[in-house]
Amino acid sequence: MGKIIMTLAMSLDGFIADENGGFDWIAGQGNGALDTEFKFDFGKFLEDIDLVIMGNNCYKEGHAKDYTIDVWVATREEKADEGDIKFVGGDIVGAAESEKAAGKNVYIFGGGVLADAFLKADAIDEYIIGVVPVILGKGRPLFLPDSPMGNTPKIPLELTNYAIEDGIINLYYKKRTE
Amino acid sequence: MGKIIMTLAMSLDGFIADENGGFDWIAGQGNGALDTEFKFDFGKFLEDIDLVIMGNNCYKEGHAKDYTIDVWVATREEKADEGDIKFVGGDIVGAAESEKAAGKNVYIFGGGVLADAFLKADAIDEYIIGVVPVILGKGRPLFLPDSPMGNTPKIPLELTNYAIEDGIINLYYKKRTE
Repeated sequence: MGKIIMTLAMSLDGFIADENGGFDWIAGQGNGALDTEFKFDFGKFLEDIDLVIMGNNCYKEGHAKDYTIDVWVATREEKADEGDIKFVGGDIVGAAESEKAAGKNVYIFGGGVLADAFLKADAIDEYIIGVVPVILGKGRPLFLPDSPMGNTPKIPLELTNYAIEDGIINLYYKKRTE
Repeated sequence: MGKIIMTLAMSLDGFIADENGGFDWIAGQGNGALDTEFKFDFGKFLEDIDLVIMGNNCYKEGHAKDYTIDVWVATREEKADEGDIKFVGGDIVGAAESEKAAGKNVYIFGGGVLADAFLKADAIDEYIIGVVPVILGKGRPLFLPDSPMGNTPKIPLELTNYAIEDGIINLYYKKRTE
């Protein structure tokens, strides 16, 4: 059995992009006094990942090319595969869960709508949430309200680790088994 | 010069109460493996506080009686003082800032509407946010969207400390001076 993992950076008030979709607020505080020895190492994180899933906007921004492993782009557009990049329509959460059942570790890259589909399905096994030391006030929220797309259930978590670098704290959670 | 401090517990998805106003989700994870030696000590925290401000709902729930120091209840109801409890109408943020200018440390107890007024005025000097290891999916958000009451500005913060107890992580922030 593999697992489905989400990593995202959010502001303290829960935004993953500013109101124009920008990310220039994702920055440290200029003071590493609280830095932990343990750091979030994205390269090392990727070593355990077999499949990256991202939304079509992320693909269009060029993020699929960042990976040398399989990438799925969730989209309703029908497109031919581009090497290791595959375009997947329909039930992306169910498809990811099948890969997980086949032993693969699946990384949900984003954006918000894709992450929301996995959240509402309670399909995430592990979360790494980087809390950036800023209140944005407005922007694109990580956690979307209930909608015709579904309701987010109550998901008890267990904090399993944390890493601080320049005021950004990465919180590692897994689904709590009670 | 004193300071204005807010402490609140929120779920990872930013709620300070569930949809019925309940708090039974504010609980540890049953695993203290990550506990820090430094703990958030509410009694010690209060030793430095001169004035507690809360909303009328919190007062009606009986929270004003928890304190042996001055309490202000923000309300449009005109009521006579009850000992150290004073009922304050009008510009509560401005009134709190006057107390701060007079050297007092002011603790914003809640609830959400009161906290929001201080957030939208960028009047908080220090935040202690306890992140509870749970995604609630719905409830009463700490950070309210822009409204006729005002817009929350972008507020750069500095992470100054943290304390973990049974999976609840208290994040200490102060306004960043750039």
